[in-house]
Amino acid sequence: MDDLSSLVAQMTLEEKAALCTGASAWTTTAVERLGIPAMLLSDGPHGVRRVPDVHALAAPSLPATCFPTAAALAATWDPQLLYTMGEALAAEARALGVDVLLGPGVNIKRSPLGGRNFEYFSEDPYLAGVLASSLIQGIQSQGVGTSLKHYAVNNQEHERLRINAVVDERTLREIYLPAFERAVKEARPWTVMCAYNKVNGIYCSENARLLTQILKGEWGFDGVVVSDWGAVHDRVRALEAGLDLEMPGPKPHRTQAVVDAVRSGALDEAVLDEAVRRILAAVERAAATPKETETFDVDAHHALARRVAAAGMVLLKNDGILPLQKGQCLAVIGRAAREPHFQGGGSSHINPTRVDIPLDELARLAGEGDLTYREGYPADDSFQQELIDEAVAAAAEADVALIFAALPASKESEGYDRTDLDLTRQQVALIQAVSAVQPRTVVVLNSGSAIDMQAWIDGVAAVVQAWLMGQAGGGAIADVLYGVVNPSGRLAETFPMRLEDTPAFLHFPGENGEVRYGEGLYVGYRYYDARQIPVLFPFGHGLSYTTFEYSHARPSSPTFREVDGVDVLVEITNTGQRAGAEVVQVYVRPHQARLARPPKELKGFAKVELAPGETRTVTIHLDERAFAYFDPAYGRWVAEGGQYDLLIGASSADIRAQVTVTLEATRPLPSRLDMESTVQEWLADPIGRPLFEPMYQQMVAQLGAALGGEDTASIGMDMTAFILDMPLVSILGFQEAMLPAPAEEIVVDLLRRVQEANAGAG
Amino acid sequence: MDDLSSLVAQMTLEEKAALCTGASAWTTTAVERLGIPAMLLSDGPHGVRRVPDVHALAAPSLPATCFPTAAALAATWDPQLLYTMGEALAAEARALGVDVLLGPGVNIKRSPLGGRNFEYFSEDPYLAGVLASSLIQGIQSQGVGTSLKHYAVNNQEHERLRINAVVDERTLREIYLPAFERAVKEARPWTVMCAYNKVNGIYCSENARLLTQILKGEWGFDGVVVSDWGAVHDRVRALEAGLDLEMPGPKPHRTQAVVDAVRSGALDEAVLDEAVRRILAAVERAAATPKETETFDVDAHHALARRVAAAGMVLLKNDGILPLQKGQCLAVIGRAAREPHFQGGGSSHINPTRVDIPLDELARLAGEGDLTYREGYPADDSFQQELIDEAVAAAAEADVALIFAALPASKESEGYDRTDLDLTRQQVALIQAVSAVQPRTVVVLNSGSAIDMQAWIDGVAAVVQAWLMGQAGGGAIADVLYGVVNPSGRLAETFPMRLEDTPAFLHFPGENGEVRYGEGLYVGYRYYDARQIPVLFPFGHGLSYTTFEYSHARPSSPTFREVDGVDVLVEITNTGQRAGAEVVQVYVRPHQARLARPPKELKGFAKVELAPGETRTVTIHLDERAFAYFDPAYGRWVAEGGQYDLLIGASSADIRAQVTVTLEATRPLPSRLDMESTVQEWLADPIGRPLFEPMYQQMVAQLGAALGGEDTASIGMDMTAFILDMPLVSILGFQEAMLPAPAEEIVVDLLRRVQEANAGAG
Repeated sequence: MDDLSSLVAQMTLEEKAALCTGASAWTTTAVERLGIPAMLLSDGPHGVRRVPDVHALAAPSLPATCFPTAAALAATWDPQLLYTMGEALAAEARALGVDVLLGPGVNIKRSPLGGRNFEYFSEDPYLAGVLASSLIQGIQSQGVGTSLKHYAVNNQEHERLRINAVVDERTLREIYLPAFERAVKEARPWTVMCAYNKVNGIYCSENARLLTQILKGEWGFDGVVVSDWGAVHDRVRALEAGLDLEMPGPKPHRTQAVVDAVRSGALDEAVLDEAVRRILAAVERAAATPKETETFDVDAHHALARRVAAAGMVLLKNDGILPLQKGQCLAVIGRAAREPHFQGGGSSHINPTRVDIPLDELARLAGEGDLTYREGYPADDSFQQELIDEAVAAAAEADVALIFAALPASKESEGYDRTDLDLTRQQVALIQAVSAVQPRTVVVLNSGSAIDMQAWIDGVAAVVQAWLMGQAGGGAIADVLYGVVNPSGRLAETFPMRLEDTPAFLHFPGENGEVRYGEGLYVGYRYYDARQIPVLFPFGHGLSYTTFEYSHARPSSPTFREVDGVDVLVEITNTGQRAGAEVVQVYVRPHQARLARPPKELKGFAKVELAPGETRTVTIHLDERAFAYFDPAYGRWVAEGGQYDLLIGASSADIRAQVTVTLEATRPLPSRLDMESTVQEWLADPIGRPLFEPMYQQMVAQLGAALGGEDTASIGMDMTAFILDMPLVSILGFQEAMLPAPAEEIVVDLLRRVQEANAGAG
Repeated sequence: MDDLSSLVAQMTLEEKAALCTGASAWTTTAVERLGIPAMLLSDGPHGVRRVPDVHALAAPSLPATCFPTAAALAATWDPQLLYTMGEALAAEARALGVDVLLGPGVNIKRSPLGGRNFEYFSEDPYLAGVLASSLIQGIQSQGVGTSLKHYAVNNQEHERLRINAVVDERTLREIYLPAFERAVKEARPWTVMCAYNKVNGIYCSENARLLTQILKGEWGFDGVVVSDWGAVHDRVRALEAGLDLEMPGPKPHRTQAVVDAVRSGALDEAVLDEAVRRILAAVERAAATPKETETFDVDAHHALARRVAAAGMVLLKNDGILPLQKGQCLAVIGRAAREPHFQGGGSSHINPTRVDIPLDELARLAGEGDLTYREGYPADDSFQQELIDEAVAAAAEADVALIFAALPASKESEGYDRTDLDLTRQQVALIQAVSAVQPRTVVVLNSGSAIDMQAWIDGVAAVVQAWLMGQAGGGAIADVLYGVVNPSGRLAETFPMRLEDTPAFLHFPGENGEVRYGEGLYVGYRYYDARQIPVLFPFGHGLSYTTFEYSHARPSSPTFREVDGVDVLVEITNTGQRAGAEVVQVYVRPHQARLARPPKELKGFAKVELAPGETRTVTIHLDERAFAYFDPAYGRWVAEGGQYDLLIGASSADIRAQVTVTLEATRPLPSRLDMESTVQEWLADPIGRPLFEPMYQQMVAQLGAALGGEDTASIGMDMTAFILDMPLVSILGFQEAMLPAPAEEIVVDLLRRVQEANAGAG
């Protein structure tokens, strides 16, 4: 018996039950008798929201660095930078007495309307998984735990506490779970937080398939499954499903319910013991890290926040006006230049240590140039033409107009979704009016998600997507605009032309307590690619102040086994005049597959910094998963043998090089012939074909007779296509009079022989 | 005991079981001992496919009139004409000894790729239902039965014998069932044929919910449910589900299985008796109609087929070149002018009494004009430039080039789907080449479904969609081209720009035995409207040689009760120089609804013939259903009180007049508050609100405290939106420490009081 088991054995039933529900809003239950301390969890994910009173859910929190939100982090495409930021987050958590930081969130941006999109990484599960994994590793490297959230299929805020997300198995496995899967396997987060919603009819908090079978079973998760705050409905059912820790507490009746269930025999005590064991292990790890022993370096973290924010800013459009020149006279327009919009609402809301004001930061870099500020739009939703008129007047006299546009703060929050992609009416009118008199207009956008820009994009000279950029974003904007930092952010989400084009448009946010994921696998660029719908800015897009050339793309081998994977190599040259970083993206496009597949999928990337004129060879490894789809018929990932194009590009729509490789499949699939298998499935099956073939020719001949004597063309059909698509049992059913036994018996007999061959092969 | 019950009582168990499975490919089992004759069923639906040998499934059939296929019929938008055609079909059935004609098919054209679309009416369930109902009434008025098929959700040929169509309840009720529902209720078909496929996991042949609960229960169907040929898998389970008659036979082991099941007690004999009773009733009706006593009028039916075909032809485009003038020299190009493509493949394939050749019919009407014929494209799929060159040469010398393009016959058939929307490569090149030298080019299209025309539509002067037009279509084409008939056909299906735009594009035809109807309600124009996707030709579109003006649109009353419905009146004037018919279409657009609704839906239409200068007032009634959606939460159709626009137009995209009416709902809905209801649902519920309101203000105040003392703005959220969207039980859960009882108990108590009030109101 190990130490933990021994500790569990010493605990009373009541103590064990109590441990599985929080003691306060933020702490687990201590057991003083046995020296088991409480563990303190605190909101994240891009800062530490440490509430001093552990019984207050949303009270003002202690000052902490507000780093950029996940939407901005994702746009860095820089796992190493996120690791570094994770280390800083952990230092703050330790200083503030926090054991577990509640983040990151890796839910997929199914729709740009999702209220919490700013807290999530991407529309792409691979990118989200790689980045979250690195952030977690950074945090946990310092002895602070994380909580990977919100598991799973929580892609909207509307009715999130009860909505039933209806999603098919393949989409679940290929789109909504892989970011969790990668982070769990690679980074081993201390805890995983279950989502509020239902998945296919079952609350996540009670979803044994998600929590136990997939997370703890298939992926080997050995940490604590914690509920989102208030997500538990039936404590006993949740325990049985694999939900270890309910938060928040105290909830004496929940604890009592667990005690009663064990006493009555309704709940196996071993289930409770397993949860207790997992919680104790986390508590033990937490206790091993010293807390509140030193403060964190406020200045250094602010500087890091600025660096990260700048790395995530995406130069969406630039006719050459950027970078700005020192000495230019600027009309700085828009309240967000003075009152920066740098974070969203809800549990991620940080009390920042300080806040950079964009206008001030610009002034620091502007040199001799005059800066004129105009408000541009009011704090509320009203329309005030005079603010526009003032801005237009200032813009007309300046060298450059710089408009800071921002989604109203109340539009991006936990708890509710957006209903459109629009800036306010006033902001749109402002941009149009200013750019009409001043073609040298630059728009800086603060939003956590895509904006519809069709009404004004053609009229402006440049657009910088600055996201919800954290407390140091004001400085980062100045850095990017003046070229102190050469922008290298790339979109981790498509910016569509219009809301009607978005994949989930017809099925968001659902009705009658249910949201059907009707678009299936086709989320983000997978959708726009498949339907060939033009977008405003594609996934992966982002400009630089320099230029890059791609050359000599090649695979490590033209042919490879799926168990080995393959490398793709490409040489990248900085062909411009400034140092800069390029994000080299690798998309995989299968030539064929048994199941329908998106046209291409991101499966690798690398961010490479290059001095002017410098060339580097970038090597990106593609493992078996990079080629695989999840086949529900086999219940596993399948990397089919055959050819694949590796598309190497600067965005999903800007493919610069392409190589074709051949995958040799070494792990054969079992025969899945069954009573419903069609003739062509029998003919295609390596085991079924030899058994069936002797019957086939005979069958075709007899069928011709049964269907009409001699002349099957009499009904104008392509009889071959017709027969091949028919289940064998059905086509035999049409000639039953000529058969020695009923059709079902004949097929059952064939299947028995297939099973024997299957077993013989195994 | 009535006569039938008495007859059933006289039958042995074996006789009853035998009656429920066919005796041959086409006949039911006779019981000579009791004078029960066999009933003969024969393929339809647009002609009688009477196979002389009842044991041969697909043998050459006796000559019969091949009327236009359903796609062409639907384009007539003329229920009365279909009734007349139904009478003729019945006369042929009687002459050929057929008791029941297997048709019509009313499945919805979910994708233009559906192999059997040519046999179905429309993408719109209202239009399909009205037309099928009238056709059935016409046939059955002559004592011949019909078989409404394929029930249900059979919208593709791919794997149709086993595919599982996964469709949500609301979509099932609003899109895929209403055509069946209307036809069953209005026209009372003798039989309904179950489809091969599964719906939501259960074979239609064993689907008790579809066959018994909905069809026989809710809709009151009192006829026979017959299997599609070979659709039964488990005879006993099918009987229990409501499948009365299995076809084809003989299948002695199936009969024996029923006998055994009754003997063992596994099957209630009453279930068998009910099926027998239904079959006997149909056999009795069939026997009452004399058969093979007289021949049918081949000439009159051919003439009728020509009239119907012409009525269904749709003038898609016309720059004024049509109608043709007598005396013009025509280059007639394309094999389909000589070998008309007038029907599809499969069970609907008719052995025609004669076939009109378009080229000959044109010659009859051409007057002095020369007709030159060029083949244009080969019979096979090869590309033959010399055929194009010959055609171009002829076209250049003619006054008008007339191209007969046709989908290859093998592309439109029962048993498999199309894979693209394209004409052959040769045909596309032909049209481009001919129209390049001859701008006066007219294209006549023979296809049963939409064609992609983007590559050539702009270059031609006119396009006539002639469908799979039946044996007399050659004459009908000539009639339309020369203006003997003024075209009045209107599209019953959208012609999209490209395949990628079609609603089911990402989910057709499914994989791994399953097709998910991910687009939900948004089929056909409902999809293009909702997503604002431009189309090639919209639903309802069709030109005329005259013009019509709409005026004085008005409702019978601006306000009406849903139980009464409302009339919409509009005056239509023929403002051109020729007599012609206009199809006046009424679409309903709700101003608001509890559930998401398509932007507009067809709910009424009328075809009106007008002499030049003539004006008529058209009155179209809209009943309760015209305003209703099916709400799965209540399990019923709901016509919400409020405003509705009635859009009156010449197509779904050509709305000519609009009136707004107000519906007064008189049938209140019960409270559906439950454990998961949100705060805003409690506040919106007429019963719940007064019970909950006293608690509400108190709750808000307490919640403020629980969430953070005083300053909820500290986490940047709109707390009102946040609270309103939360389930009551969840928000109470956050303040449980302050509550007298656990949150669940408080809500349970509230719900008990709601139930009492519900009961009191009832």
